Amino acid sequence: MRDLLTTEGLARERLESLLADGEEFAEVMRRPIPKVPALRGKTVATMFFEPSTRTRMSFERAARALSADVLSFSPATSSLKKGESLKDTVLTIQAMGADLMVVRHTATGAPWRVAEWTRLPVVNGGDGAHQHPTQALLDSLTLRQRFGGLDGLRIGIVGDIRHSRVARSDVYAFATLGASVTLVAPPTLLPPDLTGWPVEATNTLDDVLTELDAVYLLRVQAERGGASVFPSLPEYRERFGMTRRRFARLKPDTAVLHPGPMIRGVEIDQEVADDPRCLVLDQVTNGVAVRMAVLFQLLGGERDA
Amino acid sequence: MRDLLTTEGLARERLESLLADGEEFAEVMRRPIPKVPALRGKTVATMFFEPSTRTRMSFERAARALSADVLSFSPATSSLKKGESLKDTVLTIQAMGADLMVVRHTATGAPWRVAEWTRLPVVNGGDGAHQHPTQALLDSLTLRQRFGGLDGLRIGIVGDIRHSRVARSDVYAFATLGASVTLVAPPTLLPPDLTGWPVEATNTLDDVLTELDAVYLLRVQAERGGASVFPSLPEYRERFGMTRRRFARLKPDTAVLHPGPMIRGVEIDQEVADDPRCLVLDQVTNGVAVRMAVLFQLLGGERDA
Amino acid sequence: MRDLLTTEGLARERLESLLADGEEFAEVMRRPIPKVPALRGKTVATMFFEPSTRTRMSFERAARALSADVLSFSPATSSLKKGESLKDTVLTIQAMGADLMVVRHTATGAPWRVAEWTRLPVVNGGDGAHQHPTQALLDSLTLRQRFGGLDGLRIGIVGDIRHSRVARSDVYAFATLGASVTLVAPPTLLPPDLTGWPVEATNTLDDVLTELDAVYLLRVQAERGGASVFPSLPEYRERFGMTRRRFARLKPDTAVLHPGPMIRGVEIDQEVADDPRCLVLDQVTNGVAVRMAVLFQLLGGERDA
Repeated sequence: MRDLLTTEGLARERLESLLADGEEFAEVMRRPIPKVPALRGKTVATMFFEPSTRTRMSFERAARALSADVLSFSPATSSLKKGESLKDTVLTIQAMGADLMVVRHTATGAPWRVAEWTRLPVVNGGDGAHQHPTQALLDSLTLRQRFGGLDGLRIGIVGDIRHSRVARSDVYAFATLGASVTLVAPPTLLPPDLTGWPVEATNTLDDVLTELDAVYLLRVQAERGGASVFPSLPEYRERFGMTRRRFARLKPDTAVLHPGPMIRGVEIDQEVADDPRCLVLDQVTNGVAVRMAVLFQLLGGERDA
Repeated sequence: MRDLLTTEGLARERLESLLADGEEFAEVMRRPIPKVPALRGKTVATMFFEPSTRTRMSFERAARALSADVLSFSPATSSLKKGESLKDTVLTIQAMGADLMVVRHTATGAPWRVAEWTRLPVVNGGDGAHQHPTQALLDSLTLRQRFGGLDGLRIGIVGDIRHSRVARSDVYAFATLGASVTLVAPPTLLPPDLTGWPVEATNTLDDVLTELDAVYLLRVQAERGGASVFPSLPEYRERFGMTRRRFARLKPDTAVLHPGPMIRGVEIDQEVADDPRCLVLDQVTNGVAVRMAVLFQLLGGERDA
Repeated sequence: MRDLLTTEGLARERLESLLADGEEFAEVMRRPIPKVPALRGKTVATMFFEPSTRTRMSFERAARALSADVLSFSPATSSLKKGESLKDTVLTIQAMGADLMVVRHTATGAPWRVAEWTRLPVVNGGDGAHQHPTQALLDSLTLRQRFGGLDGLRIGIVGDIRHSRVARSDVYAFATLGASVTLVAPPTLLPPDLTGWPVEATNTLDDVLTELDAVYLLRVQAERGGASVFPSLPEYRERFGMTRRRFARLKPDTAVLHPGPMIRGVEIDQEVADDPRCLVLDQVTNGVAVRMAVLFQLLGGERDA
């Protein structure tokens, strides 16, 4: 594996190996001095053509915990504004001595283009509404820690599937790891064609609620047009929100996940967000751990370096 | 002491201990290689919800001089824009593995809220017009270096007290360390109620000028509404500026301090700003040193690590 | 040498020494762990008053490869907005414990003013349309690697000379190192007075094309008014672009250089930009190496530290 671009088609042993390393790095992060010299002298370039704080911070934290340097590209003041092509930007950053590129871009497929142009490993940090594979890894690690593994789990993914790279990434990872996935959304928020998706789908959360081991709530993404296809936020909450009432109906050990940022009172009620069965903060911590695993594996770090 | 939120009520021994460590770190900063491994592997999160370059740079410099990593949160591109609550932002950064949070916020009290939500130590990097305790520490260290101690010193704080978190912080630190403090401002720039402030107050700088050991000039803060309560900048200079004429009337060893950025020609004349008795650059240097002391003490650094 | 402000008047032995160290650091950058502890504990302040991603990233990469810390000043949120003078900003950053300042500024001469105010070494990272000495070093190193040395080389610099700090810097460095330089531009894009420039000049690229060992293409700088003095980009390409046709007429070992960012299809045709004789990516790599050399020499790093 040279790059990490998508979870679609990623072999189970590959996923398991990343999760195993992720678990190990999660252990490192709990040490008093949570830093290892594995990637000392390596440089991770973070190239976020779509603004992001959370994911960028997580990748940078992961790089530094491995003692790598970070080269942070900010498009706001960049040569792209002067007319440079994306390809030349990529080759320039490679020529500066970067060792790996993390690429987030509003355009679907951009990280694949970058990977064609560069000889460096590329990690997809999120492309359009398409893929976000490290999110799927952190979600999988969180479920694995909670349930011991994903085999046989029944997971519902609820909300704006159509505009969600998180959903597209999770679906393939969860299915490959043995879970069965049900998408829950109104027809307007489901992809027009689910051919090839290893999922079932329903329009009614309450129909499947009591059978789920994990409920994965997506964010209502107003900025991707998600709001325009739905009448109102209160109605969204009414039909698809994890309200206190719905939470009470779940099986007693069902977990609730959310990729963040949460909009409390819309996708999730205040009390549910603060319940120990809501694993959103474990997801954040595991995000650093799985990103360490990805950087480590793609950069061929020495385990005992 | 888990947090550093305010100088109000801070015990003298606590202040003295921070100043003693600050003095020691000021010594470290004068070495050819001004870096110690005391906080290697620790991560300091700087969360500046109000823009700032100077204070942020000072904290980041302090963190790096202690070999800590910095996790820099920038609200401009953050999840707050997507509707996330401040509490969830705080818990997210904690979950990423930060070890301490420096919080600057436009809202009075915000760092206290953050401290309720997180189990990490919190340093108030300035909240509204309320408190800015590391500023008081660096001012106190600068006066201590200059005069040997603050006991018995007579210090005048001049200017826009009402909108100044610097004044609110200095007043308590200076008084606790044994100085007597006189506020000098027109009625419109004094707080409406001085009950509980360990100070005297006057509206006329020239009445107290010759008795002061140190004159602390505040910045005219146009951005906090300070300008609207005063007729004009020339009139401000005329009544409260440290003009050349006033400087000549000071006792020969009286020191002049300013938190920066100085507006030369308003609060302070060109020649005074450049005089060796103006300690503004010592204040900047000591800012790094006292912030090292604060990070070191709150993170329980090993002195000989 | 305390500062690096300009290539004008820089002695040949000084240039050669920087290039020799640059070559050595280019070697370091090819190692598996491209990092040396030469400047451990030193702090490089990058002060970019004119936005830049490429040059800033290159300096920061160079600093980190020498194990120095970076203190990054961003004018967008700075005290300058509150009315602070540039001088006070400079003295403040010095007082924070910076060891060297890299200054980019829209105003010609700004780095000289900074050098008067500070006792720290200053590197000009580009001032207005005036000088950009590290660009000249990286260009010279690239030519030296390609041709063994610059003595006797015939170099054409093509395009918007008038608004180009790159041209002003290259001209002096190339001439001092023994090359003969021909400026190629329409009269409107040549400086009004070439007195003292060690160059020849022509308005017609095709007249000199076949005699050149290296063709240095400048960027059409729309943001500096370069576009207004030229009818259209297609006409620019027609007369001064390195088209496929012109490229075919060059001597077989003639090199093509460009400071980046390239606008493909204007200054340079797609096929030329991708040809191995176009050295633009070597220039980027050498940029990090010569900046390491400059930081190393100005900060008196220990070669075996």
